[in-house]
Amino acid sequence: MALFIGVDIGGTKVLAAAVSSTGRVLRTARRSTPGRQVEAQLIEDALTEAVEEIAGVRRPSAIGIAAAGFVDAQGERVRFAPHLPWRDEGVRARLAERWSAPVVLDNDANCAARAEIAYGAVGDAQHALIVTLGTGIGGAVVLDGAVHRGYNGMAGEFGHMQVVPNGQACECGGIGCWERYCSGNALVRHVRANNGADDVTGPEITEAARAGDPVALAAFASVGEWLGIGVSNLVEAFDPEIVVVGGGLSAADDLLLGPARVAMRESLVGADHRVVPPIVRAGLGPEAGAVGAAYLARERFRSAGTRARARRQAARGTAPRR
Amino acid sequence: MALFIGVDIGGTKVLAAAVSSTGRVLRTARRSTPGRQVEAQLIEDALTEAVEEIAGVRRPSAIGIAAAGFVDAQGERVRFAPHLPWRDEGVRARLAERWSAPVVLDNDANCAARAEIAYGAVGDAQHALIVTLGTGIGGAVVLDGAVHRGYNGMAGEFGHMQVVPNGQACECGGIGCWERYCSGNALVRHVRANNGADDVTGPEITEAARAGDPVALAAFASVGEWLGIGVSNLVEAFDPEIVVVGGGLSAADDLLLGPARVAMRESLVGADHRVVPPIVRAGLGPEAGAVGAAYLARERFRSAGTRARARRQAARGTAPRR
Repeated sequence: MALFIGVDIGGTKVLAAAVSSTGRVLRTARRSTPGRQVEAQLIEDALTEAVEEIAGVRRPSAIGIAAAGFVDAQGERVRFAPHLPWRDEGVRARLAERWSAPVVLDNDANCAARAEIAYGAVGDAQHALIVTLGTGIGGAVVLDGAVHRGYNGMAGEFGHMQVVPNGQACECGGIGCWERYCSGNALVRHVRANNGADDVTGPEITEAARAGDPVALAAFASVGEWLGIGVSNLVEAFDPEIVVVGGGLSAADDLLLGPARVAMRESLVGADHRVVPPIVRAGLGPEAGAVGAAYLARERFRSAGTRARARRQAARGTAPRR
Repeated sequence: MALFIGVDIGGTKVLAAAVSSTGRVLRTARRSTPGRQVEAQLIEDALTEAVEEIAGVRRPSAIGIAAAGFVDAQGERVRFAPHLPWRDEGVRARLAERWSAPVVLDNDANCAARAEIAYGAVGDAQHALIVTLGTGIGGAVVLDGAVHRGYNGMAGEFGHMQVVPNGQACECGGIGCWERYCSGNALVRHVRANNGADDVTGPEITEAARAGDPVALAAFASVGEWLGIGVSNLVEAFDPEIVVVGGGLSAADDLLLGPARVAMRESLVGADHRVVPPIVRAGLGPEAGAVGAAYLARERFRSAGTRARARRQAARGTAPRR
């Protein structure tokens, strides 16, 4: 049976998954990533270990990579990745050679969007926005039911839209970027600044907020309000039917989405004169990027197989030539 | 010969134009608009006077209206217009009845975008953003060569994206909207606040800046910088091939676009790793909205005529039935 693997590489971790044709995660492997100040080699070693752990002795039919960075329009190169060491590097071909397998590459948020279209919360909506909250913000634009990648393949980089003039410095080199105020990192920074807990994590903050901790609740109120303001800006620009929020932080659900819905409605121009899009939690949770990458690999290479079969059948005269 | 009229209604004036099939403005009529605190009737009287002045004794084949506000997905109603008194009103049908002529209705920036696609600066680009700077900011999204209107027909409302938290109050009810910092109004406010000239106009500021007046130059530097920051945000979201800046303020050309290009490049994430889109002046000047509205009217009703002729020919057997 064919084995399709999706690998999601974010700012802090690698998640590899074997994924079924119905989008079910069959098994996973994880590695931490060594950050952006290292050689690209170390990142690729971590990816390779995770893929090998999933594949074991089997040969994957194809592997999809969801990368937290700019991927060019051809799906060949990671042009720039704020949280990773890749700079204009031909990652797809290099890893395909190293792994001796077909590899496809796209931005992590675009992959997550494909998973949400195929198996998740986008449903029948033709125009949707996907906002993925992890270390930073990933984004994807769904138009007419498909991911809109843009002229350079770089559409959906919502996290670096400036929301605060003279605001916080961002790893990307910009100032006041949305993801400085609305992300897992922003949540953690908020709590650390307010209770001195230097090693608190996102999931711990979610747990504390559920238990009524006021510092944790204030952190979610702030990050949620920023989510609503930024989503409002995007709704004004795109006018989507639905907004899907995914990524690790979306596990907090209404702790995050409640304040976001209030802030969006307050900020959105003409809210009383339009259909205000619902802000919903992603259907797939934090594995969406890997699932979407595997889906992309399956679609690409299953299609190739299907086309080859159709050509062979046509040559044998067993199917009508078109 | 057929007469197609486009009418552009903005926050301060009505411009009606007879427009040729090649986009040439044959003649124009202007009226001032009485503001948003009046009955809708007064706005519609101003529109009617301008249309009647253009038509004279002739009967227009069709009239297109470009309105500075939200127009629903069906092109029937103005849902909300920050600078005009219309609120959820069926403007298209009411004016078609009053004028006894076919009428089409769309947002002014969408109309300007159609003019730029058909006759102007969009050229061969498939993905473009149009930013129209007048009283406020109008915007349009061009995807695959056509205007993307969104789920509610309200895509492209860039002017009300929040760029300053706790910033200036906007007529729309929002806070810190982009058009408070980047528009004809913002330019005038900037100069009035700095030299006490209470009655200075946008064109006078442009003239003063060209003559080296430091207050006027500072006003353009500020508005231009805000233009660049906002465009950068939009480029991060859409990844277009080109950005076209139109509207009355675009007459200032490099006084405005120079600072905008610098600020966009500085603010745009990964600018060294992508094709940074050019920011160009619109091809049509401040008449683009009216020209695009006339183009829309011509396309809609010429097509209907063509279809009707095709049906008649098919019924007579002079053309193949399909």
